[in-house]
Amino acid sequence: MTRKPIIGLLGGGQLGQMLCQAAAPLGITVAVLDAEDCPAKQINHNKLHVTGSFKDPEKIRLLASRCDVLTVEIEHVDTGVLEEVATTGVEVPTADGKGKTMKKVPVHPSYKTIRLIQDKYQQKEYLAKNGLPVAPQMAIESGDGRVESLKLAASRFGFPFMLKASKGSYDGRGNFKVRSPEDFKTAVEEMGDYLYAEKWVPFEMELAVMVMRTEDNNGRLKAVYPYPVVETIHEDSICTKVFYPPRNVSEEVKEKAQKVACDVVASLWGRGVFAVEMFLVDRQVIVNEIAPRPHNSGHLTMEMVPQMSQFKAQLHAVLDEVPENGLTLTPRVPSAIMLNILGGAKPTSHDRFVDLANGSFDQYTDVYVHLYGKESKPGRKIGHVTATGFSSVDQLSSRISPLIKCMDEIRAERIGSRDAIQGLNTPQLKGVPLVAVTMGSDSDLKTVSAGLQILDDFEVPFSIRITSAHRTPREMMMFAEETARSGCKVIIAAAGGAAHLPGMLASEVHIPVIGIPIKASVLDGNDSLLSIVQMPRGIPCATVGIGNSTNAALLAIRILGTTFPEYAGKMKRYQEKLRTEVIAKDEKLVSTDWKAYLEGMRN
Amino acid sequence: MTRKPIIGLLGGGQLGQMLCQAAAPLGITVAVLDAEDCPAKQINHNKLHVTGSFKDPEKIRLLASRCDVLTVEIEHVDTGVLEEVATTGVEVPTADGKGKTMKKVPVHPSYKTIRLIQDKYQQKEYLAKNGLPVAPQMAIESGDGRVESLKLAASRFGFPFMLKASKGSYDGRGNFKVRSPEDFKTAVEEMGDYLYAEKWVPFEMELAVMVMRTEDNNGRLKAVYPYPVVETIHEDSICTKVFYPPRNVSEEVKEKAQKVACDVVASLWGRGVFAVEMFLVDRQVIVNEIAPRPHNSGHLTMEMVPQMSQFKAQLHAVLDEVPENGLTLTPRVPSAIMLNILGGAKPTSHDRFVDLANGSFDQYTDVYVHLYGKESKPGRKIGHVTATGFSSVDQLSSRISPLIKCMDEIRAERIGSRDAIQGLNTPQLKGVPLVAVTMGSDSDLKTVSAGLQILDDFEVPFSIRITSAHRTPREMMMFAEETARSGCKVIIAAAGGAAHLPGMLASEVHIPVIGIPIKASVLDGNDSLLSIVQMPRGIPCATVGIGNSTNAALLAIRILGTTFPEYAGKMKRYQEKLRTEVIAKDEKLVSTDWKAYLEGMRN
Repeated sequence: MTRKPIIGLLGGGQLGQMLCQAAAPLGITVAVLDAEDCPAKQINHNKLHVTGSFKDPEKIRLLASRCDVLTVEIEHVDTGVLEEVATTGVEVPTADGKGKTMKKVPVHPSYKTIRLIQDKYQQKEYLAKNGLPVAPQMAIESGDGRVESLKLAASRFGFPFMLKASKGSYDGRGNFKVRSPEDFKTAVEEMGDYLYAEKWVPFEMELAVMVMRTEDNNGRLKAVYPYPVVETIHEDSICTKVFYPPRNVSEEVKEKAQKVACDVVASLWGRGVFAVEMFLVDRQVIVNEIAPRPHNSGHLTMEMVPQMSQFKAQLHAVLDEVPENGLTLTPRVPSAIMLNILGGAKPTSHDRFVDLANGSFDQYTDVYVHLYGKESKPGRKIGHVTATGFSSVDQLSSRISPLIKCMDEIRAERIGSRDAIQGLNTPQLKGVPLVAVTMGSDSDLKTVSAGLQILDDFEVPFSIRITSAHRTPREMMMFAEETARSGCKVIIAAAGGAAHLPGMLASEVHIPVIGIPIKASVLDGNDSLLSIVQMPRGIPCATVGIGNSTNAALLAIRILGTTFPEYAGKMKRYQEKLRTEVIAKDEKLVSTDWKAYLEGMRN
Repeated sequence: MTRKPIIGLLGGGQLGQMLCQAAAPLGITVAVLDAEDCPAKQINHNKLHVTGSFKDPEKIRLLASRCDVLTVEIEHVDTGVLEEVATTGVEVPTADGKGKTMKKVPVHPSYKTIRLIQDKYQQKEYLAKNGLPVAPQMAIESGDGRVESLKLAASRFGFPFMLKASKGSYDGRGNFKVRSPEDFKTAVEEMGDYLYAEKWVPFEMELAVMVMRTEDNNGRLKAVYPYPVVETIHEDSICTKVFYPPRNVSEEVKEKAQKVACDVVASLWGRGVFAVEMFLVDRQVIVNEIAPRPHNSGHLTMEMVPQMSQFKAQLHAVLDEVPENGLTLTPRVPSAIMLNILGGAKPTSHDRFVDLANGSFDQYTDVYVHLYGKESKPGRKIGHVTATGFSSVDQLSSRISPLIKCMDEIRAERIGSRDAIQGLNTPQLKGVPLVAVTMGSDSDLKTVSAGLQILDDFEVPFSIRITSAHRTPREMMMFAEETARSGCKVIIAAAGGAAHLPGMLASEVHIPVIGIPIKASVLDGNDSLLSIVQMPRGIPCATVGIGNSTNAALLAIRILGTTFPEYAGKMKRYQEKLRTEVIAKDEKLVSTDWKAYLEGMRN
């Protein structure tokens, strides 16, 4: 029935399962090589599946013989067989069924990429050679020379440094933090051979970028498309939480991370999606690891970039049918948080988390549960939950805090420590501002403060700056440019006299600017009002009454309400409150003597 | 592994398939009774499935014995067996495996509902008895009395009237439009027995509302939750297109349709989702048909209400685990259009439609393809496509017009008529306004017109009204209330003199109001400016320069840009154009003599 090439998939775990979930509605057939009852086969029934191990050369050849292209959901596969299948081919019956012939089956991403990535030391040597930012590293000798080699690493990198296994590590396994010479013996005992040492990176945050890579049939790069940067949280060396957008990270750093991730993926071979995990250190990004496949840090794309989740992207890329025009990996929600469901101390430990997640959505928060149909074992990834929100990631995080708390409790039970209950293990940072408030002079702050109070009351994340059109013109323009790029929705600007600040900002940005005329020493604020409101045709500035920062803030919130139902609802309640206050006063005035009322006002 | 009750599903077509797609990530097991290779079983592999017909009593009993609750994806099932299973139970082995015992298996929705709905005549008699709006109808006698009975119907309803089969009809089959007495003979020959006549309803539009129904274990209604109203288009008696929101339908009618749909579903029995299809006639809704299950008109909920698609809703309702708080069926996109993929003249006819759909998305439009894995036959539903947009449904419809055209062409080939290529077969209606423009007097129109031109240039759907704060105060308040409820994002109000209109509107609505001070006969516009800008604390009005309707429109577009990336992009391009225009003028001034330049300006 299918008219599309058949994709052969090595591995049928949760990544394979989600890939099959994406494939079915698109009419794409995926044949899976893995155990009979693997997650992918539970939701994909067809006669092309192969039962067996994705490391077994014979089974890989059998899968290849049934498919038009091979891909992987795990990098721990036999790249020798993949190379053979792609270059020599596999034996298949001839068209007349009487003889045998060889069929070459392309492998995406390329076996070369998978081979490189299987060796973490070589992977980073390759990146360094290509001018990409990685931590300094050195190979550790095998066998008896190991301790000597570790001493050399210590002298080169100082303590602590990381000792890592070149091969076979995943989910943080195969890492050892060497704190002092006393650790050498334990380290070599625990870690075995094929090791390398890496300079300790005192990172502030871990970031990840998924990148989609396309190339033509001759192996020439067509394009790399980055997904938005996310912040990843690891606990017990396993990714447990992912935040979009990363908290308190500048646009500049985000662009840098996307650029580095694209450069990394451009330097590799084959089609598909790739995860690039990075450390953020002092506004610089350092590449930590690459995964040549859909990745845990990209799970939230299913709801955040639903038009092209990492799984759809993998399918379209592998089949080389990525639309030339109009491909957009723009998020369709302002914020998203992914929480992994890890098996707890008991097989049923996670049940209460799932129940809580199923009831966690509200008017402003959508929660999506993904269970993989896997048996629960302590620490095993058996599902994940993605929450999406309509305001900032901090507000979303605060809304789903019961869920995060529950997750932390289950972990604490599992690892037997109450210390694990610490909520988010990064400091709670101030949200990306939705409103940027600025003023020409600190003398305006007194007037502006009433508006700031309103923004606080309505729980609007905002930033506040002093930028003078006349005293800091360049800084003002930079502020305007950065604000427009930051995703901030509205600017409030206060200025007095020849009040140019609001209008100048309006000229630079494309978002609404609200001007507050400040009453200066002469002319009773008329100068400020007219300087702000009488903008030339083409550049509007929304002006409020003289000194009325309250209304500026309320106008900003009405504007936010057009995007975020949350603020529209709050505005309605605020107006209702104004109404009932006046009605109460009216009732009081009617029921008491007017003189007494006046007297009461004086007190 | 599952800890949830197992759902038994009668029927495994596309509705069952999408139900299973929703169930898997939620950890819900669905056992399907249908043919081996039915769509649902392709994406749901488990050992509980029953192979056979969902009309076979023995198979239904077998399915029931394996499950905790039964539901249906089709209403043409044996309700006698369902009643037996729910009230008497099915034989199952005792816990010790030695004996037999009876297990009652609840059926949701109730067999009573399914039985009622199977008979379309009885269904509508029941609704009429419950005070719900249905078209007048009368039963037609069976056998020899049929023609006499038709004459009676004609005398009661006039021509044309509808002759309908009470049972077994779906997708418009079993309907006959009787135009004159000459049709009587053909009608009875074609339609057989068990018929009823229905007054012809000259409807303007067909609407549909999905409703989720919950009840307790004693059959007492807990709640009904309506989805948003959609507009459905039928061609060749098959639903082919669904629009959200319905085009050019007032909020009042939408609320009425939701109310009627809720009343209909409240009058039925059991848990689940229900489709209520209605005719819109002269601002009234008339119930046409009910489906006791997920429905074609609800497919777009998968992307439009992703937090609770009709399939998730069916699962949560049947399992009686609908969250008490926070359940919201609010759309997460402003507009959505569903197009059915019907098999064409050839088995491959639809391929070009699917290819087009896969490439149809752009920065402002997301397109989702759903193929059901069914063999293509002419006119058969083999998939659907949902497009979601970030502006109005009309803009979305215009963006995907190549897709609609392709769909119409495939239909034309199939039915052998070029007439079928007519684009949308309802008139192209003006979009739901995103901006409402109003003014105190028609004398303001000249000033306002520059702003209207900007709105046109930016393709913003807007409405325009005259509402005077002083001459039509009540109409003005009604306008404000209706506008705030309509989903309109911004109001632009122009007024002169004691210019109260913008401020009064701002007092009534929660959305941003932009005021344009109109220069009246005295005071040079100062009176208007101050009347608009100097609003009291609590009620902001965004004021622009005197007479500057251009800036009012541009400010409205900046505000829309905070919600719709489309407008933000256009605003950036507009500002870039302003810039290049000034730069060009500067270059001209530099390169020519200033006197010549001035002279050129005079011409």
